[in-house]
Amino acid sequence: MSEIAGKMAALVGANLLAKNHGGSGVLLSGMSGVARGNVVVLGSGTVGSNAARLASGMGADVSVMGRNSAKLGRVDRSTDKNVTTRFANEVTITRLLQDADLVIGAVLQKDARTPRIVTDAMIQDMKPGSVFVDVSIDQGGCSQTSRPTSHKEPTFEKHGVIHYCVPNMPGAYAKTATEALSNNTLPYVIQLAETGFETLIAGSGPMRTALNLADGKLHNEAIAGTFGMEHTPL
Amino acid sequence: MSEIAGKMAALVGANLLAKNHGGSGVLLSGMSGVARGNVVVLGSGTVGSNAARLASGMGADVSVMGRNSAKLGRVDRSTDKNVTTRFANEVTITRLLQDADLVIGAVLQKDARTPRIVTDAMIQDMKPGSVFVDVSIDQGGCSQTSRPTSHKEPTFEKHGVIHYCVPNMPGAYAKTATEALSNNTLPYVIQLAETGFETLIAGSGPMRTALNLADGKLHNEAIAGTFGMEHTPL
Amino acid sequence: MSEIAGKMAALVGANLLAKNHGGSGVLLSGMSGVARGNVVVLGSGTVGSNAARLASGMGADVSVMGRNSAKLGRVDRSTDKNVTTRFANEVTITRLLQDADLVIGAVLQKDARTPRIVTDAMIQDMKPGSVFVDVSIDQGGCSQTSRPTSHKEPTFEKHGVIHYCVPNMPGAYAKTATEALSNNTLPYVIQLAETGFETLIAGSGPMRTALNLADGKLHNEAIAGTFGMEHTPL
Amino acid sequence: MSEIAGKMAALVGANLLAKNHGGSGVLLSGMSGVARGNVVVLGSGTVGSNAARLASGMGADVSVMGRNSAKLGRVDRSTDKNVTTRFANEVTITRLLQDADLVIGAVLQKDARTPRIVTDAMIQDMKPGSVFVDVSIDQGGCSQTSRPTSHKEPTFEKHGVIHYCVPNMPGAYAKTATEALSNNTLPYVIQLAETGFETLIAGSGPMRTALNLADGKLHNEAIAGTFGMEHTPL
Amino acid sequence: MSEIAGKMAALVGANLLAKNHGGSGVLLSGMSGVARGNVVVLGSGTVGSNAARLASGMGADVSVMGRNSAKLGRVDRSTDKNVTTRFANEVTITRLLQDADLVIGAVLQKDARTPRIVTDAMIQDMKPGSVFVDVSIDQGGCSQTSRPTSHKEPTFEKHGVIHYCVPNMPGAYAKTATEALSNNTLPYVIQLAETGFETLIAGSGPMRTALNLADGKLHNEAIAGTFGMEHTPL
Amino acid sequence: MSEIAGKMAALVGANLLAKNHGGSGVLLSGMSGVARGNVVVLGSGTVGSNAARLASGMGADVSVMGRNSAKLGRVDRSTDKNVTTRFANEVTITRLLQDADLVIGAVLQKDARTPRIVTDAMIQDMKPGSVFVDVSIDQGGCSQTSRPTSHKEPTFEKHGVIHYCVPNMPGAYAKTATEALSNNTLPYVIQLAETGFETLIAGSGPMRTALNLADGKLHNEAIAGTFGMEHTPL
Repeated sequence: MSEIAGKMAALVGANLLAKNHGGSGVLLSGMSGVARGNVVVLGSGTVGSNAARLASGMGADVSVMGRNSAKLGRVDRSTDKNVTTRFANEVTITRLLQDADLVIGAVLQKDARTPRIVTDAMIQDMKPGSVFVDVSIDQGGCSQTSRPTSHKEPTFEKHGVIHYCVPNMPGAYAKTATEALSNNTLPYVIQLAETGFETLIAGSGPMRTALNLADGKLHNEAIAGTFGMEHTPL
Repeated sequence: MSEIAGKMAALVGANLLAKNHGGSGVLLSGMSGVARGNVVVLGSGTVGSNAARLASGMGADVSVMGRNSAKLGRVDRSTDKNVTTRFANEVTITRLLQDADLVIGAVLQKDARTPRIVTDAMIQDMKPGSVFVDVSIDQGGCSQTSRPTSHKEPTFEKHGVIHYCVPNMPGAYAKTATEALSNNTLPYVIQLAETGFETLIAGSGPMRTALNLADGKLHNEAIAGTFGMEHTPL
Repeated sequence: MSEIAGKMAALVGANLLAKNHGGSGVLLSGMSGVARGNVVVLGSGTVGSNAARLASGMGADVSVMGRNSAKLGRVDRSTDKNVTTRFANEVTITRLLQDADLVIGAVLQKDARTPRIVTDAMIQDMKPGSVFVDVSIDQGGCSQTSRPTSHKEPTFEKHGVIHYCVPNMPGAYAKTATEALSNNTLPYVIQLAETGFETLIAGSGPMRTALNLADGKLHNEAIAGTFGMEHTPL
Repeated sequence: MSEIAGKMAALVGANLLAKNHGGSGVLLSGMSGVARGNVVVLGSGTVGSNAARLASGMGADVSVMGRNSAKLGRVDRSTDKNVTTRFANEVTITRLLQDADLVIGAVLQKDARTPRIVTDAMIQDMKPGSVFVDVSIDQGGCSQTSRPTSHKEPTFEKHGVIHYCVPNMPGAYAKTATEALSNNTLPYVIQLAETGFETLIAGSGPMRTALNLADGKLHNEAIAGTFGMEHTPL
Repeated sequence: MSEIAGKMAALVGANLLAKNHGGSGVLLSGMSGVARGNVVVLGSGTVGSNAARLASGMGADVSVMGRNSAKLGRVDRSTDKNVTTRFANEVTITRLLQDADLVIGAVLQKDARTPRIVTDAMIQDMKPGSVFVDVSIDQGGCSQTSRPTSHKEPTFEKHGVIHYCVPNMPGAYAKTATEALSNNTLPYVIQLAETGFETLIAGSGPMRTALNLADGKLHNEAIAGTFGMEHTPL
Repeated sequence: MSEIAGKMAALVGANLLAKNHGGSGVLLSGMSGVARGNVVVLGSGTVGSNAARLASGMGADVSVMGRNSAKLGRVDRSTDKNVTTRFANEVTITRLLQDADLVIGAVLQKDARTPRIVTDAMIQDMKPGSVFVDVSIDQGGCSQTSRPTSHKEPTFEKHGVIHYCVPNMPGAYAKTATEALSNNTLPYVIQLAETGFETLIAGSGPMRTALNLADGKLHNEAIAGTFGMEHTPL
């Protein structure tokens, strides 16, 4: 789903920049003779690199910021020439956000709350009518100004910057998302139908670890912990 | 303005395909393992080729249809490999529209009403939730189903297809549009300031032909004809 | 050799589509104003991705089908925009083969007979004069209709589809294939000449495992098993 | 048809280089670690530039030779980086042919026999098993060694070089060629059906000049001259 | 020669930016994680577009400034995505020069002294150690700070900016320049040898207009005017 | 630093080819109608692939030579079409060097002196005025003719070939190099400031292994060995 969310982030951002959506009226792709829009992507993982690819495809000037040199190198080599990679630190983030028309938050930390690397002050320094799409909102958001919104009312304005913070973004492109999900789950469904439930669970494959509930008992330790329920090991 | 309108058409269409905007939920760029969206562009002029470039940049499969072999060849050579050019005739248009997720009407005929090459029946044959953006609406529209809308209420649904028919599209990206307009008009303003009105009008340059009204008299013959007013030759 | 076989498959297929070779007369690259050919590649490994690259280079519309998401993603990012990746299942394969002008079988399973994922019925559904190149024929072929042919008589027709099933494809481009082979074997030959046979065999390097026969004794267990001969461990 | 002939020339040549077709066994696209094939295209018009594009797409090293600086510049800017343009003179042609694996003759002179810029001696100097495809054969051929062949027996060998000199090349890809032809003629057929023969001929449009025979009289002066028949002006 | 001069300008500029040549130490192509250099090209003709292409090929961020919309559009469509085109006016030039690492003057006005669009104040505003290469120096230079230099002492420093103003730039790459020159003059030399001097001069071809001196008489009116000599019409 | 050194090598080489720097006067990028320069890169690691990318970006014909098939394949897939990869052996190196305008030595062997794969004889066979940039000079150089030079006097001539052998190349582009270095060291500096010296050294992270000297004692065994000093284990 990260691939869809990343691509969507660039698309949604380009759209919110329109005057009638409250944006500054900058067309990311520019046109001949006129400056293009500046897109800053915070994060160089799957979400970030896909957001960068789509924004680059639309013709924007794109900066991808990250702290992992190897990942930045990979993004650098596999994207078009309007994508620059930048090592992320407070000074550089602050400066790049001041010139940005669209900022995409794609900071994801495994098994932890997303760090809030964008401060309230940085948002205040952004140009009026610019847009901030926080894809990392489903793990808490990467800006002090982020709070979850919904597909019904997807945006709010703060310090003159339009914030889009819908946690379940891929739901908007349900057909593509469903096909992607089916591709990855269908093999397991077939295996289940052909091999049978008991045999799969008894084995050592991924199906055993995937079992959450069976015969009224909860086998997933993490869920049990979260909800304070009893946990029965398999 | 045609360059902006073309790019905008692809962007607006991609956005309307989202479920929450009433579309089929197809993400034009697809993702690895999943089919991409099909975009059909009717017309191979400035609007059409710019729409094709942006849709191609987003990763869609794009067909540009036209009747001018030289223009089709130029589009073919100057776009990426996911853009195909097709000679436009009724049979081909009908067939391609059936598979389309997004259709962009960019048919412009000089000094005449746009021909209605898309019929009501063709629209009925399109997939439910697909999108039709008619850029040629400001000259009457290229589909029997088109009628002008506004930035406030930009779309209507007909035969299950979302129609976007805003005549003044570039207004949405006012900042980029204004910069483009200034670039092209500023030289004349400067000339006006430096040379003076009378001298310019007396000359044979473009300023003479551009004069519509002066000293309470109407010098533009076409406008005089349209509004049934008296025409005074310069 | 997989790299050559993959590239050759696209080239051979493009050529067999000519009327005078029995094909449907579709030029894969199309031309401006005319539809291009559809190429479906079954498999996303070295053979498949190289076949896709050459077909894409010739200007065809290419779909690469596979079941490994990571591999599909890699093909997606490293090929041009006329290459789409699709997750392979029976429904999708059936549908894509109906529209294909050229199908390339590049399904390779390690240490096992290639699975026959193309059925007789799927071939019957293909367009007359379309072409099927089965690169996986050297491990049994991936279609129920495949049977080995030779460079002398490389094709046969079945259900109106031209089949090309030559097991040793790279032999046709012997010069390129030989240079590739030499590049990879020469270092060992030099090592053999410099270090001497006994020393190398006594060591733990790849030369020890590569030894099949010595002093009239068979040291390769797999070959011994296949031919029912006596096996002498080193 | 020049577009198809050019693309076909590269495809046919790549195929004839296979050992089993008598060629040197060089795969034009090479592979990683191995040299690619050298393609020399004589002529920078529609045939030449399309031949260069397909050869470049297959991964060969391509040199396009011509005498028109403006055309060479256009080819240079609109092709990929493995295409070099070279000003054509006897010295350069001789030297480049010595290193070529495939030579494509695309020299077309308007209203005149093609000049024979390739001499018997240059062909003798080429590498054994290399291929010469003479697209200009329908206007007499651009080499002293060229003579027309047919789709049935398309090649002959001279000085160790395989010659392919079929005058009506596009016939091999009849489906694509027919669609292209229909695209360009259909508008006239429709005009004929709607407006009627007499009206069109009486007018000053292209249909009047296109008329060869009517009411048993020959109206085309050039044909009359060629066959020594009586010419009746319209 | 404009093509070479343009390419050279980017190359020379990249080199002068090195610390040991007095530059700011910015590598135009940057590297992953680090900002790239900014190149501003003044002029969108042959010199400008070639300078932009080479700077873009090296990986810099490039802005091409011009006043001809059609030319800017052509540069926009035929260059890579790290090239932006900007309409040139005093405000924009001033702002872009402040951020530039390398500025290339490629402003050429036909039959007239180059306008001095870069002022002393703009140069003062540039970053210390940045580089200005004025290709238009052979027609007077496009900056108030420009004055001709030589291949021996090619640069001088003014307001902290390194100026390179060698009028005959292509001389540095004499081999490439000579081959280019020969390509374009050889046909005339051959014609001269084959047809003879008198016949050519008597005709109406380009050789007649190219004649400057013959039989001790000066036939070129412009040269006669410049040097106050007697002019004899042919 | 390898990334900068590689890019710089191509830039420095292109510059030294100018007549006024003693080179042959070949412009690597050529121009339309004229042959481009040949660049041979010895080595396919970080230095080699970056040198190849910049030379390719300038428009040269580039051959990357190496002995690691996997690395060559990666370079092949991730570079433009004017880059060819070649398996390195004595015969091929000798032949390619004869045609080269610029040779870049990027042979790096881990923990060992660079092997001298370029012999004095190979250099003698090169064209007069061609250029050899030996990036591997800081580990001894990869040619029998290499010896270290300095930024002040960076080149010497041997057998008519200009040698550039500055060990600390990135120093010339100090600004870019410093930013790159800071990006990679800053995180450690921050960690040092926040966590404190003793805690970090006591831990098992990279800071412990990075410690060379503390409290007047030498903790790095390799340095101790090289200088014959006493080594105190942590």
